[in-house]
Amino acid sequence: MSEKYIYSYHEGDGKNKHLLGGKGANLCEMTQIGINVPPGFVITTATCLTYLDTPNRTLPDGLMDDVKQEMQGVEKGTGKLFGDPNNPLLVSVRSGSAMSMPGMMDTILNLGLNAETLPGVIKQTGDERFAYDSYRRFIQLFGKVALGVADEHFDKQFETVKQRVGAQVDVDLSAENLKEISDLFLLVVKEQTGRPFPEKVYEQLEIAIKAVFNSWGGKRAVDYRREFKITPDMANGTAVNVVAMVFGNMGNDSATGVGFTRNPGTGENEMYGEYLVNAQGEDVVAGTRTPKPVQELEKEMPDLYKQLVDLRNKLENHYHEVQDYEYTIEKGQLFCLQTRNGKMNAVGMVRSSVEMMNEGLINKNQALLRVNPEQLEQLLHPRLDPEHKAEALAQGLPASPGAASGKCIFDADRAELIGRSGEKVILVREETKPEDIHGFFASQGILTSRGGKTSHAAVVARGMGKACVAGAEGIKVDTRARQATIGDQVLHEGDVITIDGSSGNVYIGEIPTLPPTFSKELKTLLSWADEVAQLKVMANADTPDAAEKAIEYGAMGIGLCRTERMFNDVDRLPIVVEMILSDTKEARQTALNKLLPIQRGDFKAVFKTMSPFPVTVRLLDPPLHEFLPSEMQLTDELENLRQLRGTIQGVANVLNTLRVSQANPNDLPTPLPAPFDEMGEERINEIINKKEQMLRKVRELYEVNPMLGHRGVRLGITYPEIYAMQIRAILEASAECVKEGIDIHPEIMVPQVTTAQELKHVKKIVETTQAEVEAAYGLKLKFEFGTMIEVVRACMRASHLAEIAEFFSFGTNDLSQATFSFSREDAENKFLPLYNETGILHDNPFEVLDVKGVGQLMSMTVEWGRKSRAGLKVGICGEQGGHPDSIRFCHHIDLDYVSCSAPRVPIARLAAAQAKLLEDKYTV
Amino acid sequence: MSEKYIYSYHEGDGKNKHLLGGKGANLCEMTQIGINVPPGFVITTATCLTYLDTPNRTLPDGLMDDVKQEMQGVEKGTGKLFGDPNNPLLVSVRSGSAMSMPGMMDTILNLGLNAETLPGVIKQTGDERFAYDSYRRFIQLFGKVALGVADEHFDKQFETVKQRVGAQVDVDLSAENLKEISDLFLLVVKEQTGRPFPEKVYEQLEIAIKAVFNSWGGKRAVDYRREFKITPDMANGTAVNVVAMVFGNMGNDSATGVGFTRNPGTGENEMYGEYLVNAQGEDVVAGTRTPKPVQELEKEMPDLYKQLVDLRNKLENHYHEVQDYEYTIEKGQLFCLQTRNGKMNAVGMVRSSVEMMNEGLINKNQALLRVNPEQLEQLLHPRLDPEHKAEALAQGLPASPGAASGKCIFDADRAELIGRSGEKVILVREETKPEDIHGFFASQGILTSRGGKTSHAAVVARGMGKACVAGAEGIKVDTRARQATIGDQVLHEGDVITIDGSSGNVYIGEIPTLPPTFSKELKTLLSWADEVAQLKVMANADTPDAAEKAIEYGAMGIGLCRTERMFNDVDRLPIVVEMILSDTKEARQTALNKLLPIQRGDFKAVFKTMSPFPVTVRLLDPPLHEFLPSEMQLTDELENLRQLRGTIQGVANVLNTLRVSQANPNDLPTPLPAPFDEMGEERINEIINKKEQMLRKVRELYEVNPMLGHRGVRLGITYPEIYAMQIRAILEASAECVKEGIDIHPEIMVPQVTTAQELKHVKKIVETTQAEVEAAYGLKLKFEFGTMIEVVRACMRASHLAEIAEFFSFGTNDLSQATFSFSREDAENKFLPLYNETGILHDNPFEVLDVKGVGQLMSMTVEWGRKSRAGLKVGICGEQGGHPDSIRFCHHIDLDYVSCSAPRVPIARLAAAQAKLLEDKYTV
Repeated sequence: MSEKYIYSYHEGDGKNKHLLGGKGANLCEMTQIGINVPPGFVITTATCLTYLDTPNRTLPDGLMDDVKQEMQGVEKGTGKLFGDPNNPLLVSVRSGSAMSMPGMMDTILNLGLNAETLPGVIKQTGDERFAYDSYRRFIQLFGKVALGVADEHFDKQFETVKQRVGAQVDVDLSAENLKEISDLFLLVVKEQTGRPFPEKVYEQLEIAIKAVFNSWGGKRAVDYRREFKITPDMANGTAVNVVAMVFGNMGNDSATGVGFTRNPGTGENEMYGEYLVNAQGEDVVAGTRTPKPVQELEKEMPDLYKQLVDLRNKLENHYHEVQDYEYTIEKGQLFCLQTRNGKMNAVGMVRSSVEMMNEGLINKNQALLRVNPEQLEQLLHPRLDPEHKAEALAQGLPASPGAASGKCIFDADRAELIGRSGEKVILVREETKPEDIHGFFASQGILTSRGGKTSHAAVVARGMGKACVAGAEGIKVDTRARQATIGDQVLHEGDVITIDGSSGNVYIGEIPTLPPTFSKELKTLLSWADEVAQLKVMANADTPDAAEKAIEYGAMGIGLCRTERMFNDVDRLPIVVEMILSDTKEARQTALNKLLPIQRGDFKAVFKTMSPFPVTVRLLDPPLHEFLPSEMQLTDELENLRQLRGTIQGVANVLNTLRVSQANPNDLPTPLPAPFDEMGEERINEIINKKEQMLRKVRELYEVNPMLGHRGVRLGITYPEIYAMQIRAILEASAECVKEGIDIHPEIMVPQVTTAQELKHVKKIVETTQAEVEAAYGLKLKFEFGTMIEVVRACMRASHLAEIAEFFSFGTNDLSQATFSFSREDAENKFLPLYNETGILHDNPFEVLDVKGVGQLMSMTVEWGRKSRAGLKVGICGEQGGHPDSIRFCHHIDLDYVSCSAPRVPIARLAAAQAKLLEDKYTV
Repeated sequence: MSEKYIYSYHEGDGKNKHLLGGKGANLCEMTQIGINVPPGFVITTATCLTYLDTPNRTLPDGLMDDVKQEMQGVEKGTGKLFGDPNNPLLVSVRSGSAMSMPGMMDTILNLGLNAETLPGVIKQTGDERFAYDSYRRFIQLFGKVALGVADEHFDKQFETVKQRVGAQVDVDLSAENLKEISDLFLLVVKEQTGRPFPEKVYEQLEIAIKAVFNSWGGKRAVDYRREFKITPDMANGTAVNVVAMVFGNMGNDSATGVGFTRNPGTGENEMYGEYLVNAQGEDVVAGTRTPKPVQELEKEMPDLYKQLVDLRNKLENHYHEVQDYEYTIEKGQLFCLQTRNGKMNAVGMVRSSVEMMNEGLINKNQALLRVNPEQLEQLLHPRLDPEHKAEALAQGLPASPGAASGKCIFDADRAELIGRSGEKVILVREETKPEDIHGFFASQGILTSRGGKTSHAAVVARGMGKACVAGAEGIKVDTRARQATIGDQVLHEGDVITIDGSSGNVYIGEIPTLPPTFSKELKTLLSWADEVAQLKVMANADTPDAAEKAIEYGAMGIGLCRTERMFNDVDRLPIVVEMILSDTKEARQTALNKLLPIQRGDFKAVFKTMSPFPVTVRLLDPPLHEFLPSEMQLTDELENLRQLRGTIQGVANVLNTLRVSQANPNDLPTPLPAPFDEMGEERINEIINKKEQMLRKVRELYEVNPMLGHRGVRLGITYPEIYAMQIRAILEASAECVKEGIDIHPEIMVPQVTTAQELKHVKKIVETTQAEVEAAYGLKLKFEFGTMIEVVRACMRASHLAEIAEFFSFGTNDLSQATFSFSREDAENKFLPLYNETGILHDNPFEVLDVKGVGQLMSMTVEWGRKSRAGLKVGICGEQGGHPDSIRFCHHIDLDYVSCSAPRVPIARLAAAQAKLLEDKYTV
């Protein structure tokens, strides 16, 4: 085959990274746009694959002839000769695939050194020590990489000499010592491989090329590609770059440095980087000498600084992207050794995107596509200072992003007490319940030892935008003893901890955090995103406060307002409990009547805040037992209370006896601890009765599989008065807004629908209530009536549901559980991690929409629904609605909106724009 | 419109029941085939609908003219004249719709009686008393039905006269008395309606026709149609039959009777029925005189008996169906008044079907279609004697059909002890667990107060073919006190109860039962069914014993062999528990090694029994915690054990003290009750430790939603050694069978599959094991590898699963739960009854396949699966697989087989045949 194996940097196509590797392509590109790159060439990735495919791994016929041919070009470009004793050319041999795989494959420097060429190098550099140092390094690196000799054999010899001559550090070694070491290293190679170290330079080169090729199939590289999901269509085989060596350590007119075309930390458009005079690249990395900021080069070598500024400008102007580049100054001549797209943090990416657009370097679409939406998360929550290294004490699930520190407190009441007093508090519980809600408000963050990412703690914390680590199973919480244990370590109440809800880590002590930065550049970028995106981005927000947050984050409405969250407030929960404990419809109605004005007030405030955006209110969804304490808690409490009653009775008896015997009052026993000292038996009996009643109800409401139980519209049908109250609250709130001239767009949404009959049932309540409210307020109401699609059967019946529902909202949390038959809490604790590890499932379907299964259902549902009601509005309000990959899919199946927790709204806005921009490239 | 309102019996089309009603059509038919029917005509159902649609409910123009016209034909046929004082014609006016709605609509007899015609009747009959009796009856019936006068007004007058004349019973009243009563009744009508009783006969007739029409729209009829799901396409409107009255009470040459063309109880081909000489139809029904068996008529009126035999033969030969007919002999002349298809019990239906086919009256297909498959259930289980009336003490869910009596026993150990001693026992528990299994074997039936139709008790009982009533929530079981309470009633251990697993009723005492009857006729019928059916019928059977039962019932293989049921045997459960309690893979393997030979033995026995039929073995499915006692039970036991330990310590202390004080041995306390008297502290500590270990494991394995938890293939992947053991047991059992020359067809089935990766994972274990077993036994194994389809995602990924699986089996129990997001146990206890009542769902989807939702999924799955693997074998093994409607759907979507519990196999075989025969008529 007349396949072309090799491209010189003058001829290779800089766009063809697949063939030439990233590094090779960039070196070609730079060479061809006139940047001073050391002469060299690149052997293609295709050659690598051909080589790896041969049975005995032999290089293709003629490859080495071509290499020799190309080497003549390099010799010409440098004026040196490969293997020449007087003016020897040295080269580096480097791997480079289409995807960057840092440190994963092998590089050999200074190839071409041998006993013959060494004097030539000494002559070229006038530095004997440098020559021998290079030599011994080359022997070891080549020995290890190309010949498979373990480092330890070299290191032993090296240490022996070092000790003998009394050298503290490597630089204490003289040229003589290094020469001795080089000789010893040559012996090591001979001993270990049974053959002398290859002296012929083309033999060295051939072995090195093979070694680089082999490294592509090595364990390290294979593991890396699996870990980072690099598939053959992304990178297949490595190219080999053979490049003339240049030296930054040839005196004070030489230097080496690295740079970014913009500040990667801030994104600022400025010279950025570091350099060392008279040094090699390794020295910058090794940290033995402290490099100087590039600005100082302006004073030290003003001319070269100017050249460097030119280089930087040339790179950005050419690549239209921030570049991370390496350079060497060899005797006053600037060489650019490498460039690649610069990795920046979120702040840097956002600012540079906006500025590069404003500078005309890129257009808006490019600006939008540059930023990874997930990266924005860094900007929206406090985060641990990455400079501060600390070891995690325990790990849980990253349940609500952000970092927070505070005193750990083990119950909500005390958390409130201490939190309100101004102290920072982390609420630590085994798991939380609605009745803990006041503790959430008062805390910086929440840590639980049980429950998953949809546990009460996680969902509520996300809604509030507070940090939460959930299900940290290593922590044993002992509420009674007011302490927690992690292995041997005991955490007492009041000890300060830090939790990182973005990683799930828990730390002892306070760790400094960086504040969120919702910069003006971010706002600009997101406004561009909104112009482009087709999907609207709504927020899941349940309270007036949350609605304000949603607006701050740029939500275009509320896609999910969970009415039950309003029930959870301290002043409401007792009424809700009263409602649940009611045994008659009348008693239930009495409690509901108390809730009505509260809910109406909430809705009104939310509608007002969101005006003129739509607000989708979901009617009550969770099973009623979620509002009650757990059976375990109640039995514990009852046990304690009964014991307390016994104590009180005992004390009373003793007191009576003493009174009768007229004893000295000083002999009276000390009173009970507060607050029980004033608690009479009667009061305690009252409490016991109440708790017993609750316990009976909890047992009555017990469900084997609450996820599939008595909830959602099933509650609305069995207790129609609950839905009737909520619907009235929504419509009365709407009426009041209309009266006040506020432009509102309320929507009523029914959860857990499985059949069209259920929807009809609720619709009837809505119509009756509407007529009554309109009559009472003397106005007409406009609102929409729709359904959650979170039950598989609802998908199957979509065309029928769409006859009644004016909109669909996919509840992909529940829909995914039902589609997989995975209970999220159980799956994440029991088998999902193994499923992800072994590749049975690539992602956690509760975070990333399962496009193949759940997505297939959704896509059919949209089609069937719109067939029956043209233009049916369809959205998603599951957690996946804030995940960029899922958003791309939602765009693909033509949804109208996504709704996610408020802090993810900016991410979703950017992702929605990218989904539109990349729609042609989408594949399931 | 020139619509024809009326058809005389000579002209109406006997096939057009929709237009003429069932009764009218049959009267036309009989008239036209030469059976002596009293002259008459029928007004169409269409006329009824037209009438009901008019705003003021007026009869269509010209209808009464047509009626008069037709009456002339009746007058001609009878030689009497309507309204004639000398020879008056009397008629009955009866409703009759396309569907039989017994007692739901109105009938008026003797219409045409009035002051003028009464003497004519006396003359005709020579019986004044009869004439007045008919008159007063007519006035009351017409008054009530046509004029809306309540019975009580008539009854008051009637009783007054009766008391005055001292009549004990009605027959004591003289003609004079009845005349007085008639007059009083006429006054009642005048008082109550404000108008005199209509005297004109055509006015009477018109009012009566309207009344019959109106009755179609009356509340009673509307409710009946809703209750029995009679839709307009089945019956729309009622026809009105106007028929000349004939009288069986005109002397000893007159009689009245009812007959079946075959014995409805046994199906035997014989004259069957009863008659009364000189009586009217009401007399037979009223029971004031005891009718005689029809055989006696041969002696009393031999000629008429011969006519009756002719009539019977004519009816069967014409209708090709067993007829239920009524006749009257008026002065030696036989009139057939009515015929309809005879309702028979299952025994009768089956025998008559087979015999009618053998007699050439019907063909095989007709024989198969005659029998309602559900009816067969009567033949397959003992059932309560319907003659014995008893009031149910409580009601639960009909969880496993059949009736059983026995002493109620509250724990499995005692049930075994007492059951083995020969006593009949009913095991009564709150709910059952695998560890109760020995109690099942020893009991006649099982009663639980908790759990649904898929609870452990229900499923195991069905598998064993034992009666079970589950979830009888009215019963509070107190195991410790060895008693149960139902309201105020206390049931002590040993009290005899009867449970009816077909109705869910529970009775105090023993109620006689009828034994099952798997007759030779049933076997014949089912063999015909097998010839016709396209669907194969398999059984769900888990043990060698169950396999034998399956063969008895005619199963063509085992479609679902649940390996975990084999774990539940008394000798295995401790090993399974040991396996679960293991903390290391090695310990687990040790336990599994003990299970291997046991499972292998089971499989071998099952394969042998079923040879040459296929046996589909499902690998372990339930979550491991199902094999352990409940947390509640363990904490209870531990509490008791700890208290016991305390007592033992206390006793020991006292004994020591006494020993020290050398007290009189007679003062020593009595020892602990057996078996604790010999239990030392050490032994009790051992037990406590074991239970504590179990409790820890139970808590570790706790799941929020076990239905969606760590089970099925998820277990197989997290603990591959469990599946490896089971697969080895299956393949080694197969190898042993092959060695013995037995023709077997084993299939390995993986439960709870959600992704193709899971299947691949298990397939790999299968392949490895296969290679090892084949090598060890020196032979090749043939078997199939397939998957359950019980997870929605598996449906979505059917085409991918079919690349690996050689067969699919729909697990519609779980699939229905996932599709509806209904946990069966929770739904059936909490909201499903209300859903069925209010018509939100017509059926319980766990009994009858939800064709619109789950069926839609199944249908897509079959299509996608077969697209990827042509001819893919697909079956169903959920409970619905034994339900006739579901079987029709399975046939419709072209499944290969259904699999159900063994006792439902005969039902399924017949249903499968009917599904084939009726396939053209199927609509979803």
